[in-house]
Amino acid sequence: MLGTTYPSAICSAARALEVVGERWTLLIVRKALFARATRFKDFSTLGVSTNILQKRLDSLVDHGVMKRVDGPGRPEYHLTDRGLDLLPVVIALTAWGDRWAAPDGEPVHYTDRSDGGRVGLELRCSNDGHVVAPADVIAMPGPGMPSPIAERLRAMHDE
Amino acid sequence: MLGTTYPSAICSAARALEVVGERWTLLIVRKALFARATRFKDFSTLGVSTNILQKRLDSLVDHGVMKRVDGPGRPEYHLTDRGLDLLPVVIALTAWGDRWAAPDGEPVHYTDRSDGGRVGLELRCSNDGHVVAPADVIAMPGPGMPSPIAERLRAMHDE
Repeated sequence: MLGTTYPSAICSAARALEVVGERWTLLIVRKALFARATRFKDFSTLGVSTNILQKRLDSLVDHGVMKRVDGPGRPEYHLTDRGLDLLPVVIALTAWGDRWAAPDGEPVHYTDRSDGGRVGLELRCSNDGHVVAPADVIAMPGPGMPSPIAERLRAMHDE
Repeated sequence: MLGTTYPSAICSAARALEVVGERWTLLIVRKALFARATRFKDFSTLGVSTNILQKRLDSLVDHGVMKRVDGPGRPEYHLTDRGLDLLPVVIALTAWGDRWAAPDGEPVHYTDRSDGGRVGLELRCSNDGHVVAPADVIAMPGPGMPSPIAERLRAMHDE
């Protein structure tokens, strides 16, 4: 066990969850990604209360995930590059929900628009592209890990 | 826009977030996946308050993501198959955090234990395995989508 040696402040998953770790946030992003939602009323169909929705949209703008565009009509909310880059997170979550919480079958198939093939996420090794089994994935220290913690992380896998 | 035609009740991402859509929940799963955490005290080093931690562990057990194992000592919490299957979600979130919220470099590299290669998630077409660009991914109706909604979803992409 890494014990207290591994503060969540240096964990990228924790930092990501500080931005998107709230149920509605990722559903808002999903609706913008795949249903072309840009206006408040588009997102309000998610079933979220209007005051929470406005808070979440403001927070997404504050975190640079969305950009508010003011024009002659109501403001629009557009995903930034940072927001568009959440697509794999949404797909990973959907795939899990499809496998474990979709009794009537998958509601949506993510599809390549060019050839209609189904799109999925695969764990691949960056060296040679081979598919990696989940059980073979371990966490090793990267450049952003303080060295005493890095040592302990390495030692855990040498046991 | 799909508008009110697309209730979140038939969305696998929404269903997934009902189970794991809370910041601590995925950090608990992550700690179990990659730091061999099994006991209450192992998870408490995340910095979550003890009453919230117990609630989250109980909820994970209720949702079948973890299994509580009682023995002579303190209970242990083990990931079930459903919980182990959250690994891609954690990796997708971490990758996003690495790209957008890791000013000192990635704290952790997910690595293939067999050859030390870095592991990442790739969007691939299930037909022929080609890499799909995020901008080419669209949502098409699957078998679990009620047909009036499915029609509208198809129509949106025919525009």
